[in-house]
Amino acid sequence: MIIINIGDELLLGQVVNTNAAFIGQKFTLEGFSVSECLTISDNKDAIKDAIKYSFAKDNIVLMTGGLGPTKDDITKNTICEFFNRKLVVDEETLSWIGDIFAARGFDLTETNRKQAEVPEGSVVLKNKLGTAPGLWIQKENKILIALPGVPFETEKLICEEVIPKLKNLNKSENSIFYRVLQCNGISESNLSDKLDNFEKNLPDNIKLAYLPKPGIIRLRLTLAGNNSEEYLLNEYFEKLKNIVGNLAFSYEDDSLEEVIAKLLKGSKKFVATAESCTGGRIANLITSVPGSSEYFKGGVVAYSNDIKRNILNVREDNLKKYGAVSEMVVSDMALNVMELFDADYGVSISGIAGPDGGTDQKPVGTVWIAVATPTRLITKEFNFGKHSGRIQIMERASNAALNMLRIEIEKDIKR
Amino acid sequence: MIIINIGDELLLGQVVNTNAAFIGQKFTLEGFSVSECLTISDNKDAIKDAIKYSFAKDNIVLMTGGLGPTKDDITKNTICEFFNRKLVVDEETLSWIGDIFAARGFDLTETNRKQAEVPEGSVVLKNKLGTAPGLWIQKENKILIALPGVPFETEKLICEEVIPKLKNLNKSENSIFYRVLQCNGISESNLSDKLDNFEKNLPDNIKLAYLPKPGIIRLRLTLAGNNSEEYLLNEYFEKLKNIVGNLAFSYEDDSLEEVIAKLLKGSKKFVATAESCTGGRIANLITSVPGSSEYFKGGVVAYSNDIKRNILNVREDNLKKYGAVSEMVVSDMALNVMELFDADYGVSISGIAGPDGGTDQKPVGTVWIAVATPTRLITKEFNFGKHSGRIQIMERASNAALNMLRIEIEKDIKR
Repeated sequence: MIIINIGDELLLGQVVNTNAAFIGQKFTLEGFSVSECLTISDNKDAIKDAIKYSFAKDNIVLMTGGLGPTKDDITKNTICEFFNRKLVVDEETLSWIGDIFAARGFDLTETNRKQAEVPEGSVVLKNKLGTAPGLWIQKENKILIALPGVPFETEKLICEEVIPKLKNLNKSENSIFYRVLQCNGISESNLSDKLDNFEKNLPDNIKLAYLPKPGIIRLRLTLAGNNSEEYLLNEYFEKLKNIVGNLAFSYEDDSLEEVIAKLLKGSKKFVATAESCTGGRIANLITSVPGSSEYFKGGVVAYSNDIKRNILNVREDNLKKYGAVSEMVVSDMALNVMELFDADYGVSISGIAGPDGGTDQKPVGTVWIAVATPTRLITKEFNFGKHSGRIQIMERASNAALNMLRIEIEKDIKR
Repeated sequence: MIIINIGDELLLGQVVNTNAAFIGQKFTLEGFSVSECLTISDNKDAIKDAIKYSFAKDNIVLMTGGLGPTKDDITKNTICEFFNRKLVVDEETLSWIGDIFAARGFDLTETNRKQAEVPEGSVVLKNKLGTAPGLWIQKENKILIALPGVPFETEKLICEEVIPKLKNLNKSENSIFYRVLQCNGISESNLSDKLDNFEKNLPDNIKLAYLPKPGIIRLRLTLAGNNSEEYLLNEYFEKLKNIVGNLAFSYEDDSLEEVIAKLLKGSKKFVATAESCTGGRIANLITSVPGSSEYFKGGVVAYSNDIKRNILNVREDNLKKYGAVSEMVVSDMALNVMELFDADYGVSISGIAGPDGGTDQKPVGTVWIAVATPTRLITKEFNFGKHSGRIQIMERASNAALNMLRIEIEKDIKR
């Protein structure tokens, strides 16, 4: 399959192409492979050329973008020209659009009505999250799938409409299988040395890749083959798990906050957070998981020292003697937020995210983290590099804190 | 210029291609244009083919990815084969890598040393954020720029090394100019109707594009031309500003949190937040801006009703009678967090982010927001659509809250 992402905004970089990533991931998982990905300008000629070029190489082409109601959205007209068809109103889409606008209290306009027009002979893929429908157009053995470019609309259409229809067409014999393992707390090169022998001894059809994110390294083991060879991938994955050991926090694609969710759901234990330099990022990551109210009480973003003192009862002595970024202050924060919020785990963090505020003793990137439980208090100092950006430091610090929390929760579960 | 992003992880979608967006944006701003963007697999043949294909179309090719220390990073060897050069150790890079590892307390390994190897004759672009250097290789009039794929390393190298070097080469006569205007609180189609006439009367070399993000629509007006025509773009941009009026929160690329930063810096006024359904996202957005400690005291993430009662002093009566997602409860939250944190603005939010927790009266997507000031209390109910995803609802709600805060701050400044 070839993907065409349409949009000047992508080439100009005003919008990040998250659709390409989502599509690649989803199709790979489902056994379809994406061989190439083109990002092109939103003009008629570029779209026509890309369709021609892609159909010369593949029978299935999936396009995103250019189906909205506005003037810069010219995909539908271009498809009509290409397939030599005309636009017709799809009544079901029209009534759906009417319902959406009524619910939002907006009036239906002529522009909205145009969204219900589709190239004659298209199968309409209902877009439950928006007004621009997806299109599935087949001519002989060529299939063109055109989806709106708004990421969450694209995603829902792919999962609920495109994948099931593709599966009905044919089951591919050869697939790509992969397993993922994620670690926190080691550099990419040190991990690579640890895995040197393992990697040298991999069979030709298995490949190891390193996918770093701030504070996290994902290792992906990929097998190109058929179902009967999957056992080989699993064997090597077990070897990999043994070598990486307790640096791994997940053997799946789960984020740290999802691992914590799985550990805490049903445990009747609660977490509370006290954040300074991460400014609510840890709480935000925890609550991004559906159902997190089952184990998360809330937190305090104690950005100023006033709030550390007055809300979190950090001792004035500790602030004065050791400074806000210190083991003593994060200890106060973690223990007090646990007590104040009547929680079972208190996580706290204080650091210098920069670009200003660093000193020789405590350069930008210095971060103290504490995790309190009713019986334990664990503290750790990190240095995330004074040359890293503010957002990267916040991200690495949040992941380090979540990983420390995960380790303590796992200790309690093992008991 | 043609961009080649190397990496199976991009085609498989395990990593989002943020580099393409950053590169497109930065180069466009600096007057260089990106005509095409290829995402390819990380194998030798694919890389060689892409280099050949790109140099047939353009003299400048920028590649990202595949320069790290691990076995899957084969770009350097492929470049050597392509240009028929050998790898040599760059002593300056070697000593830089040694320093980094010493500072982090890691040992330097054979793998790390390999990172200091570069194709003979390369200009080395120092990577201040990592161990893989960037490369600038010129042969006659063709220039190949190869950068590591880790986004913040790529970004710093482009800003500090690549752009200045490109500017030295040649100043392009024809450029793309653009102006951006951002709105909150209107649907894309309603905005499009408002702008119908404006758009119809645009000259041929000016284009209007709609770039929606959750809760925000960015309008981009683009002119393809030279410096002497920029005045025309400015004229039409002024017309656009008049039509959009007070729906606009920025005439630049600033996010809502950056607009708020500009309004509050130096004002000696402080914000405090009380969040339920957004779980710390608003605080996190505010603190993502450097220097936010100047106007942000902190906040409470009151995810459970306990915390709303015990920490934020929300009246039990209000919780019982109206429920946690209600005008009365967000009013209590905003007023009390303002008082508790000794702030000048209190922002509060409570809603149902889903996927569970919705009822007929209050479906998923229902959100109440309040902004308190010492003299005013503004409340508003939103419905962000029960079919939207959890993360989208959290994002739209956060932007709506920041926009309400911005409006109140602007009222105070105008007085």
